[in-house]
Amino acid sequence: MKFYDCTTAPSPRRVRIFLAEKGISVPTVQVDLRNNEQLKPEFRAINPDATVPVLELDNGTRITDAIGICIYFEATNPQPPLMGEGAEEKAVVAEWHRIAERNGFYAVMDALRNATPRLKDRALPGPDDYAQIPALAERGRARVARFFELMDARLAQSEFVAGARYSLADITALVSVDFARWVKLSVPEECKNLRRWHAQVSARPSANA
Amino acid sequence: MKFYDCTTAPSPRRVRIFLAEKGISVPTVQVDLRNNEQLKPEFRAINPDATVPVLELDNGTRITDAIGICIYFEATNPQPPLMGEGAEEKAVVAEWHRIAERNGFYAVMDALRNATPRLKDRALPGPDDYAQIPALAERGRARVARFFELMDARLAQSEFVAGARYSLADITALVSVDFARWVKLSVPEECKNLRRWHAQVSARPSANA
Repeated sequence: MKFYDCTTAPSPRRVRIFLAEKGISVPTVQVDLRNNEQLKPEFRAINPDATVPVLELDNGTRITDAIGICIYFEATNPQPPLMGEGAEEKAVVAEWHRIAERNGFYAVMDALRNATPRLKDRALPGPDDYAQIPALAERGRARVARFFELMDARLAQSEFVAGARYSLADITALVSVDFARWVKLSVPEECKNLRRWHAQVSARPSANA
Repeated sequence: MKFYDCTTAPSPRRVRIFLAEKGISVPTVQVDLRNNEQLKPEFRAINPDATVPVLELDNGTRITDAIGICIYFEATNPQPPLMGEGAEEKAVVAEWHRIAERNGFYAVMDALRNATPRLKDRALPGPDDYAQIPALAERGRARVARFFELMDARLAQSEFVAGARYSLADITALVSVDFARWVKLSVPEECKNLRRWHAQVSARPSANA
């Protein structure tokens, strides 16, 4: 088994935190995104989508999606459960993971990729070049501000994002909040519940992953 | 149990097909998206995110995300499995479902919502208004064309999107391909594998859902 990673990148960080919470260690290969190693023919032969993370199984199957990889390890190493137990909890974890990904992770990605000079024509990850859209960067910033409010309201009612225990939804939300620093957006003072939660989940050893 | 639906909308159609494949029937309430019923206070009290589908459980819990709802029914009614069995198949189904959603479903949504006069200031679903971005509509159209090529290449190697059997990945891809007609994009003649698959999955009774 082999894990293609990039220690500075937020998407594979989701898997690293997930693995740390499970206590799983996987042989890892670093892919140098700063120097566009993911776009080189050698890496495209591994993942035509030209993104990390990728998990290569011993039979050669490659899983090229962060959440697909988490699902793999949830099945092989069910303890501690990070995607819920029982129909209702599983559904609620997926729901909140997806709310955080849509409103947080993707909004930060829009804000970053459509404004950073280094990412000119790289407005989306993947094999194809797309021009930056400045209005989309602006919209991304507005959406991140709303994401902070949404999570603050949720965390006023709930210890963790999906309920009473830590889950994949917390991982996605944590990585999104930290990713927002890349576009110089941080949780406002008045979002006290989100700040309480952020301090709490950041204190877990897995947050260093 | 109660399912909030809108028969003309693509996102809840994913759940309707999923339920039809499982042979599950749930009491359903129609939400009139054409007349913005989802934005009215009565519906926002049910789902503050102002979107369908929503599944309301008998204990009052509401699942406000299409995939969260599918996960609920995969757990309560595992047969036939639509999200894979065993770690590897579960991971591959999730991977391809997400590839189809990112590159297909969301690309069509960008193309539609950023160009349709009726959706002025409704460039994203949800409670907040966002102005249309014409360049994002154009990018969406370009991405849908690439999505057709990507799926065609995949379906040259595989009977169904995630492998040898029908799964949630087929549902997401089918709904995305059909949704593309809303922006007058259809599968090109030369994408023979994608056309073969589309005819095949459209012939299943569930496709009428």
